[in-house]
Amino acid sequence: MCSNVFWGTLIEVLGRERPVGRIAVTDGMADAAVAILEDAGHEVVLAHYTPEELRAGSLAEFDAVVVRSATKMSSEVIQASCSGGRLGFIGRAGVGVDNIDINSATDNRIVVCNTPGASSRSVVELTIGHLIATTRLITRADRSLRSGDWAKKSLRGSELGGKRLGLIGFGRIARGVAELASAFGMEVRTFDPFVSAKQAEDLGCQMHDDVDDLFRNCTHISVHCNLSDETHHLVNADRLAIMPTSAPDGTPCGNHVVNCARGGIVDEIAVLEALEDGTLASAALDVFEVEPAGDNPLLQHERFHGSPHIGAATLEAQTRVGTEMAGLLISFFKGENPESAIN
Amino acid sequence: MCSNVFWGTLIEVLGRERPVGRIAVTDGMADAAVAILEDAGHEVVLAHYTPEELRAGSLAEFDAVVVRSATKMSSEVIQASCSGGRLGFIGRAGVGVDNIDINSATDNRIVVCNTPGASSRSVVELTIGHLIATTRLITRADRSLRSGDWAKKSLRGSELGGKRLGLIGFGRIARGVAELASAFGMEVRTFDPFVSAKQAEDLGCQMHDDVDDLFRNCTHISVHCNLSDETHHLVNADRLAIMPTSAPDGTPCGNHVVNCARGGIVDEIAVLEALEDGTLASAALDVFEVEPAGDNPLLQHERFHGSPHIGAATLEAQTRVGTEMAGLLISFFKGENPESAIN
Repeated sequence: MCSNVFWGTLIEVLGRERPVGRIAVTDGMADAAVAILEDAGHEVVLAHYTPEELRAGSLAEFDAVVVRSATKMSSEVIQASCSGGRLGFIGRAGVGVDNIDINSATDNRIVVCNTPGASSRSVVELTIGHLIATTRLITRADRSLRSGDWAKKSLRGSELGGKRLGLIGFGRIARGVAELASAFGMEVRTFDPFVSAKQAEDLGCQMHDDVDDLFRNCTHISVHCNLSDETHHLVNADRLAIMPTSAPDGTPCGNHVVNCARGGIVDEIAVLEALEDGTLASAALDVFEVEPAGDNPLLQHERFHGSPHIGAATLEAQTRVGTEMAGLLISFFKGENPESAIN
Repeated sequence: MCSNVFWGTLIEVLGRERPVGRIAVTDGMADAAVAILEDAGHEVVLAHYTPEELRAGSLAEFDAVVVRSATKMSSEVIQASCSGGRLGFIGRAGVGVDNIDINSATDNRIVVCNTPGASSRSVVELTIGHLIATTRLITRADRSLRSGDWAKKSLRGSELGGKRLGLIGFGRIARGVAELASAFGMEVRTFDPFVSAKQAEDLGCQMHDDVDDLFRNCTHISVHCNLSDETHHLVNADRLAIMPTSAPDGTPCGNHVVNCARGGIVDEIAVLEALEDGTLASAALDVFEVEPAGDNPLLQHERFHGSPHIGAATLEAQTRVGTEMAGLLISFFKGENPESAIN
């Protein structure tokens, strides 16, 4: 079938001619996922390669490669990996594909897949955790205990219930946050130019057409969009300045910003200044403009707390990432188009 | 009307003969609550008194006094406060009445009231906050960022969803926690000898008759009972040792203990040893056997975090405490029996 047309379609060639394949896993994978692939007859090679080895074509003897963020699949690496005429699949065990040159993969007829849903639940829970930790001063409380203080009097926080939460973006994670925030008694609003007002309203959230309106109405903001030219520094000094400082019922709870999405959407210098001049009561970030965050002065502010990009860092997310990727590979080798194919 | 019987009933004397009264507020009160009382015609005096002043009878010229935890209403103070024949009401703006000699108040025909419901919501939210902070290592994450590390790899946590949460006690706060934990996808179980299995089941929680069974079945334990002889060190080494280390779906999430109720219910030495030998994956305490907690070695453990008894330390709880207390005072001066009268 189609053997005279070597690149008839990628799926025909790699799928039908290689029902089982040789898979390189370069940044680790959950045991359960490896077992699924081996049970399906595939050969799984768990090995890390240096950039030099990758550029020298170490992946050319594989039909598929699964990476996380450590392995950089640049155009040069992809070219070298295709030299054997085998590689047809790059799997990103996770969400962001910044480390894969998608155009080069497409030019070389390589399917690129990620596992966008596997970590959603973990990010949702971390977002709610950061919301409570920031409004109840949990990290500051723990710091005070460790230093021998009993700073009960200076640790007055505020409840989430009765406050208005603004979600920037209304994708899978934001919807999970909305559901839980509603259970806490928050009123949830959102801004997402790619989602209809009706879709948001069906989930009990009011949609704003203008992101400034979201800031004007919400004491609590949580970021749930991708980083792009449009969203870069979307949370900036001007918008922080128009947030109300009191809840709808008049409680002077101050303003709070949480970002567990992508660094760069929040202007960190603006956040530090807003914490210093009282525009913001607190801020919590899991993601930063530059990672590792290193000596960012924001990290030292008393009313800031953060975590080093651990939204997906749970046992459950890592297991789901693996089993979801195994499913994508199996479907690829069967000649089907994998569900999360990006190109 | 009963004027010939000076102590006919307390309510008759103080209520009918003094429809408006003079109220001392010794540990502060929300402005809104003071306004309610003044609008009702009462005189409110906000002043702090030293123990010496209290023993000398500074409260004798008042019909009612509202305290928090700082003012100690010992038998001696109560006796002195009654010397004017006026004081008929001691209000505790908060829950615990350890600082009031209830027997002495009763002997002197003084009604004692607290505001048990005002802070429930705040404690519920803090409990969920501590549950997420402890399973997602939020305080440790923030500590690592502040020290210049990017400890992403060593901060793998676990989700609440799919885990089994055991609630010790099933009163107002536990029910609020149960509702939210269910929204996170937790399976909630409880032990409370004063609540019927049916009441718990109606709220979606399975009731265990034996507290050991709760520990045997739950990877996550949260304390929501009073401190008594029966509950002292209820969370101890033997019970921590029988907790399962994996969730119902097999996820090896480890065991976690949270206490936002009362110090002394959790054996802190047992918790420290359990953290050290791996029996516990984490622990979070808002309350301690000795407060201020001072140099308790538990506070320094890497997988512990805590807060200095801030369950009710929110703007909302303090406002509700005040307005609830104002309502109790108004009902007392009307000659009604205040709803939360303890004696």
